[in-house]
Amino acid sequence: MHRDRFYTLSASCPDQVGIIAKVSAFIAQHGGWILESSFHADDVTGRYFMRIEIKADSLLFLLAEFRSRFKAEVAEPLSMDWQISDSAVKKRVVVLVSKQEHCLYDLLARWQSKELDIEIPCVISNHDTFKGFVEWHGIPFIQVPVTKDNKAAAYAEIQRIFEDVRGDTMVLARYMQILSPELCDALAGRIINIHHSFLPSFAGAKPYHQAHERGVKLIGATCHYVTSELDAGPIIEQDVIRIDHSDAPEDMVRYGKDIEKTVLARGLRYHLEDRVLVHGNKTIVFR
Amino acid sequence: MHRDRFYTLSASCPDQVGIIAKVSAFIAQHGGWILESSFHADDVTGRYFMRIEIKADSLLFLLAEFRSRFKAEVAEPLSMDWQISDSAVKKRVVVLVSKQEHCLYDLLARWQSKELDIEIPCVISNHDTFKGFVEWHGIPFIQVPVTKDNKAAAYAEIQRIFEDVRGDTMVLARYMQILSPELCDALAGRIINIHHSFLPSFAGAKPYHQAHERGVKLIGATCHYVTSELDAGPIIEQDVIRIDHSDAPEDMVRYGKDIEKTVLARGLRYHLEDRVLVHGNKTIVFR
Amino acid sequence: MHRDRFYTLSASCPDQVGIIAKVSAFIAQHGGWILESSFHADDVTGRYFMRIEIKADSLLFLLAEFRSRFKAEVAEPLSMDWQISDSAVKKRVVVLVSKQEHCLYDLLARWQSKELDIEIPCVISNHDTFKGFVEWHGIPFIQVPVTKDNKAAAYAEIQRIFEDVRGDTMVLARYMQILSPELCDALAGRIINIHHSFLPSFAGAKPYHQAHERGVKLIGATCHYVTSELDAGPIIEQDVIRIDHSDAPEDMVRYGKDIEKTVLARGLRYHLEDRVLVHGNKTIVFR
Amino acid sequence: MHRDRFYTLSASCPDQVGIIAKVSAFIAQHGGWILESSFHADDVTGRYFMRIEIKADSLLFLLAEFRSRFKAEVAEPLSMDWQISDSAVKKRVVVLVSKQEHCLYDLLARWQSKELDIEIPCVISNHDTFKGFVEWHGIPFIQVPVTKDNKAAAYAEIQRIFEDVRGDTMVLARYMQILSPELCDALAGRIINIHHSFLPSFAGAKPYHQAHERGVKLIGATCHYVTSELDAGPIIEQDVIRIDHSDAPEDMVRYGKDIEKTVLARGLRYHLEDRVLVHGNKTIVFR
Repeated sequence: MHRDRFYTLSASCPDQVGIIAKVSAFIAQHGGWILESSFHADDVTGRYFMRIEIKADSLLFLLAEFRSRFKAEVAEPLSMDWQISDSAVKKRVVVLVSKQEHCLYDLLARWQSKELDIEIPCVISNHDTFKGFVEWHGIPFIQVPVTKDNKAAAYAEIQRIFEDVRGDTMVLARYMQILSPELCDALAGRIINIHHSFLPSFAGAKPYHQAHERGVKLIGATCHYVTSELDAGPIIEQDVIRIDHSDAPEDMVRYGKDIEKTVLARGLRYHLEDRVLVHGNKTIVFR
Repeated sequence: MHRDRFYTLSASCPDQVGIIAKVSAFIAQHGGWILESSFHADDVTGRYFMRIEIKADSLLFLLAEFRSRFKAEVAEPLSMDWQISDSAVKKRVVVLVSKQEHCLYDLLARWQSKELDIEIPCVISNHDTFKGFVEWHGIPFIQVPVTKDNKAAAYAEIQRIFEDVRGDTMVLARYMQILSPELCDALAGRIINIHHSFLPSFAGAKPYHQAHERGVKLIGATCHYVTSELDAGPIIEQDVIRIDHSDAPEDMVRYGKDIEKTVLARGLRYHLEDRVLVHGNKTIVFR
Repeated sequence: MHRDRFYTLSASCPDQVGIIAKVSAFIAQHGGWILESSFHADDVTGRYFMRIEIKADSLLFLLAEFRSRFKAEVAEPLSMDWQISDSAVKKRVVVLVSKQEHCLYDLLARWQSKELDIEIPCVISNHDTFKGFVEWHGIPFIQVPVTKDNKAAAYAEIQRIFEDVRGDTMVLARYMQILSPELCDALAGRIINIHHSFLPSFAGAKPYHQAHERGVKLIGATCHYVTSELDAGPIIEQDVIRIDHSDAPEDMVRYGKDIEKTVLARGLRYHLEDRVLVHGNKTIVFR
Repeated sequence: MHRDRFYTLSASCPDQVGIIAKVSAFIAQHGGWILESSFHADDVTGRYFMRIEIKADSLLFLLAEFRSRFKAEVAEPLSMDWQISDSAVKKRVVVLVSKQEHCLYDLLARWQSKELDIEIPCVISNHDTFKGFVEWHGIPFIQVPVTKDNKAAAYAEIQRIFEDVRGDTMVLARYMQILSPELCDALAGRIINIHHSFLPSFAGAKPYHQAHERGVKLIGATCHYVTSELDAGPIIEQDVIRIDHSDAPEDMVRYGKDIEKTVLARGLRYHLEDRVLVHGNKTIVFR
């Protein structure tokens, strides 16, 4: 966590000798002070991943020029997928909720204290349960009812709102609806869900009841990117908590809330800080 | 977690042969259906501890009569310290906060969803930071400023409020003031604090900075009863989270919040459900 | 953990008012000093479970008489499934291994120091890898080769050995063979396996490779009773360990060993101390 | 974990612009293929730390030349503390034990399976408890009795043995003696201890009894470098395990063993792989 403004380069490219040398030489030539750097080579696929934080005012020019030079001198020669973000530009996160409070309260507490230094242009819900609570925080609350018959229209409307408010990331904070494949595809890599099981165990509905039925001794939560296949997208973060034979499914629901909100917050933070690089159906997370 | 109304007996007495037999025979004679029961013998001090949940409508008489009979027939012969509480009578919890949001948001989320099925007669603070937030929830917010010069008066006022609102339990939800010995003694066993370290390490001020200085690899939080000796009261619950060399004290503060609020909520729940029996400076916690 | 000799009663019966009263009255009448006691009511099936440790020399008569009286006066009237074991009679544990060392070394270390106060009448293996190591400890080592063609004969031989050495419990300490349904049925509830995944995820072969493929952020181990359905028996104990994107399957294998041996040792201990009561395909574990 | 031979550079130097660029350019110029790399800037002290693994046969020359060129072209200009080790040269680890078996069995299991790919030139003990066990593994066992009167001579002898067998690292695997300041100083940064508490809590003797006395809810273990101040050296790794009121100090001792051996093994592994850089009384651990 750095107080000064910084740029974050995250990139991947085919592995070869000299990648770090080329990237770091480019940064050093222009005076760039590296605050934090992480690298990973995937031996199986031969792909190389990196994330570098550079102190903004150490560079000799502004970000636009940095980007165009980096592209020409480094990214294109190395066939990189890359992006550079600016810590001074707050990410815009649209939150979707239904009737459960724990993830919403948790996110707004982090937002209120600037622990999560983001903008929340709106909260969208299929119910009006949290209208007052959200609006009290000065955040617009938009209800988009979802019924059996209006699903296509409802998800088109949610996508419209997301685009109109210029959302960067959509967070499903225990939003109890299954998004349309169209929406999943349109925002691939930008929708984050929290599932209340330790995936791949107990995907789908009522995972705590499934866990109770099987008699497991730990229950979990999984933060993942949403894809059109239910609960099968790339996993960002997971955690578990111990239970025992005396815990009914209702107790598991209660225990589970504590890991759901924590795992979601950690996963979201990694994503917002460009610490997550997706590789096939898996993630590299540079914590 | 039981849906039906129940009574909770929690008790301790000198150990001897036949304690469970006497207590359970008394309950069975009067038709009492035991939902949950826990027992513990302390080998060192020779004291015996128990906690029993009894289905309210299984008993042949009401609680007042149950209490008077239990006292005469069981508790006095066994020289017991005991109490019987009624799940239909909500506990009244007074929350004290300063300027940190995480424990307050967390407690109000649990209260709002009835996960914590308590009454909060008021929130007291030395600052007005959360006045609007608390009042939006329909909970009175009372500011009691604390300065170098008014401490005695301030704590007397807090005690007055606690008594006037008929508080059962006082929760210091990251209340950054040290209570007076008088208040600690007056409400012994009824004030719960969350300390942001794994006690007994790093008692007192700025524990995360102390932890950073020492180079530990895990940081913790401790929920404990407040006594007049700072951060030295009986421990109810603790937990830890992993950190590493890259984490500055500010990062630890951020990580720590997640265990502070969870540990406080767990400890408070144990206390409110009469799962905690204090024994000298230690606790028996019947989870 | 008690130093004095004690008897352990473990039992289950249909739930009704007065079970604890009847059992504890019987024990108290005969002078029995209860060292530890645990109870659990399964609300769904209406079955009641208990485990009670009684100081042996506090009883007025010996175990044989205690058993026959308990049967007539308590167990039969309550339609109990029950057993009473004697801490002075060491359990006899037959260990099966293949070529992996970690669980075997771990168990023998615990046996050597009497942390596990058991007899190991023999170690059985399909390989001779650990013959010298086991025999150095003064424990007979019996090699029973298993090939595609001799499976039926091999498992019959293992069962014959187990019965001849009067085994109480069979432990599959990373024994890389699938037992025959006949053997599983013959020793139902007496064979304990350690599976190297957090079941129900990744049952079957190469679970760490499956975990790597899916990109999970924690890997686990599961100690369970063996049934004829592979990796699907009642779970006794589980635990997990954190991994990240930099860990290859080989690293997971290495990390996993540490939880496998610990989870197996914990599960085995619970079983040997009669802390595990099987209920359908689930377990009650009175830790 | 890499199968191919590699060199590991670990280094620290005053922070400045261009360190990664200089180091990585040097490596790339000579064909070096980087398998793994980690960097850390300490903001407070302005010191920079790194660890880089380079595939051995990717370099154009042998290690001696690599070292001398690196020194002249990189290390001296940057005022580095540095070392380069060769994965083909096994580290030599001298193990000291007393009468407790768990860490010794655990280390020898890892050594036997080559999970720890080290040489153990000898095991030294003040008792003869494990003479047969160690020698069965083909490892020399040297008893050096320690009495009140011979301490100086005993520790001088242990140092003599360590030097004669060309030890790289000395591991105190629950060696229940306090080394002399002379020995600690002579082998500074090369002696690793496992202490059976979560330091800084409960340093010194009988930490589990101290923990029981205080009533903590988790107990821990700490792997650290030995310095002449007891249990106060730089911490390499720590972990904890949950206990409760029913656990006597003897139970804690038993639970504690499982984390002691695991934490020691992890800490030792980090040290042997040059993942630990000492900075004042703290460590950077590049896991």
